[in-house]
Amino acid sequence: MATARLLLLLLLASAAASCSAWDISIRVPTERLEDEVVAPLIHALRPLLGSGAGQLAGLPCDSWRLGVEAHNIIDWETVPAKCEGYVGHYMLGGHYRRDSAVVVDEAVAYAETLQLAGNGKEVWIFDVDETTLSNLPYYANYGFGAKPFNHTSFINYAAEGTAPALPETLRLYQRLLELGIKPVILTGRREYLRDATEKNLRQQGYSMWEKLLLKPTSALQAGAAFKSGERQKLVDAGYAIVGNIGDQWSDILGAPEGSRTFKLPDPMYYVS
Amino acid sequence: MATARLLLLLLLASAAASCSAWDISIRVPTERLEDEVVAPLIHALRPLLGSGAGQLAGLPCDSWRLGVEAHNIIDWETVPAKCEGYVGHYMLGGHYRRDSAVVVDEAVAYAETLQLAGNGKEVWIFDVDETTLSNLPYYANYGFGAKPFNHTSFINYAAEGTAPALPETLRLYQRLLELGIKPVILTGRREYLRDATEKNLRQQGYSMWEKLLLKPTSALQAGAAFKSGERQKLVDAGYAIVGNIGDQWSDILGAPEGSRTFKLPDPMYYVS
Repeated sequence: MATARLLLLLLLASAAASCSAWDISIRVPTERLEDEVVAPLIHALRPLLGSGAGQLAGLPCDSWRLGVEAHNIIDWETVPAKCEGYVGHYMLGGHYRRDSAVVVDEAVAYAETLQLAGNGKEVWIFDVDETTLSNLPYYANYGFGAKPFNHTSFINYAAEGTAPALPETLRLYQRLLELGIKPVILTGRREYLRDATEKNLRQQGYSMWEKLLLKPTSALQAGAAFKSGERQKLVDAGYAIVGNIGDQWSDILGAPEGSRTFKLPDPMYYVS
Repeated sequence: MATARLLLLLLLASAAASCSAWDISIRVPTERLEDEVVAPLIHALRPLLGSGAGQLAGLPCDSWRLGVEAHNIIDWETVPAKCEGYVGHYMLGGHYRRDSAVVVDEAVAYAETLQLAGNGKEVWIFDVDETTLSNLPYYANYGFGAKPFNHTSFINYAAEGTAPALPETLRLYQRLLELGIKPVILTGRREYLRDATEKNLRQQGYSMWEKLLLKPTSALQAGAAFKSGERQKLVDAGYAIVGNIGDQWSDILGAPEGSRTFKLPDPMYYVS
C-alpha cells in the first residue's frame, strides 16, 4: 500500500515536471485545507534539480523561491523556465495555501493582542493582487510567471473583475473588522481600474473598507514609493497603521511601514 | 530499483521523524554540494503534519520556516517542539546549504556588477553567528533551537573559538576581497569575546577585514539598534555600505541598511 502510494506520487511528480500546459479551470477552495488533503501534494513539490546549460540551470527551485520570499532575489522578470512546473504545483497545490495560512494565523494572533485607543483611527493596509484577490486563473495561462508579463492582457483580465479572493486574506480582513480595526486597501492598480476592482472586491466578500486607494493613472512612481507616500498621508491624517499585508516587498518596505508587516508568498512575479 | 530507493527514503524519513537524539559529531562539508548528493535529502524533509493538541499542533514546519525567513514570525523563543526533527534535517542535510548557496550566488552576482569609486571606501557588512561562522555543532546539542537558549553554555562554546565557517559566506567574503570591496564584520557578540572570535575567524579563513565591530560588554541596546547605529557611524566616516549579509532580520532592517541586503537562512533562533 505504502509502495503503491509512493509510486503514484512519483508518477504525479514526474508528470508535473514534464508538464507545461495546465488545466486552467482553477477553483480556489474556500475551505481551510486539511493536513490530509495537503500532505500528498508536498511530495509533488520536489525541487527540479537539473544539469542543463545556462546560468540558472543548477538552481534548485525551492531555494529560488525562498530567495524571493526573503528578499534576496530581486528585480527578476520571469520565473526561471525550469521552475514553471514547480511554481505551478506550489500555487495550485496545498503548499501556497498552507504558507499563506501561517502568515495569516500570525497576523490574526498579533491583531488580537492590540489594545485599541477607541478613536477608530487604527487601520490595517491590504494590497490587492495576490493579497485580497488572487490572479491565479490569469497567471495559469502565463506559465505561473514563467512567461513575460503581458500588461494589456492582465489589464483586460483585471477589468473583468472576476478574480477570486485569497481565502486566508479574507479571513484576516473579516477578523479585523470584528476587532474594530479598519481596512485600508492600497494597490498599485491604477484609477481606471477602480470600478472593476471595487466590484470584484465586494463580490468576493470584502466590504466596509475605510479607503480604497489606487495609483493615479498618470503617476510615474514605482510601487514602493507610491505606497510609502500613501501610508505617510494616512499617518499625517491621524491614522495609526497597526498592520500591513502584501505579497511584494514593495508593499512593505519604506517608512512608515506600519507597526507590523506581513509578507504573503508570491513566486509568480516581482514588483519594485 | 526505483521502488527500493523510495522505500529507503521513506525509512529514512520516518526514522528522522521519530528521532530526537542527534549524532553531534558534525562536519560541515566545505566543498560545494552537488545536486546528486543533495537530492535524496530533500525527501527526508517532509514537513511534519501532526494532529496533536496545542496552538502549533497543526503547524506545517516548512510553512513555519518560510514564515520565519520572510519576517512574518518574529519574537519567537524556541523552534516549535514538533519541528525539531524537521529543522535538524534542514540544517544537517543539503537543504540549508543549498538555500545559503542561492543567497550567496545572488550576492556575488550583485557585487560583480558594482563600479567602485576607487577610493577604497566600499564596505560589505558581515554578521558572525550563522553567517561567517556556523554554530551548528553547538545547536545540535540544543535540539536545533527547540530547547531554550542557554546563554552560559553558548558563551562557553563561542569562547572556544572552534566554530566552522559557513562555506558559502566564506566564498562571498573571498570574492569581495578580490573585487576590492572591504569586509566589515559587525556582530552582536560582546567585546569579551573579541579574542576568541578573531582567532576563530582567522583559523576558518577570514582575514583582511576593515573592521571587526563587537557590541560593548555593557551595552543595553537590542541587536538591531546597535547594528544600525554602527552602520550609521561607518557612513558618517565616509564609507559606502554596498552590501550587508546576516542571518537575522535585525542584521538587515534599520537605516542605513546598505545598498543591498542578503538574509541567510536561520530556523534555529531569533534575535531582535
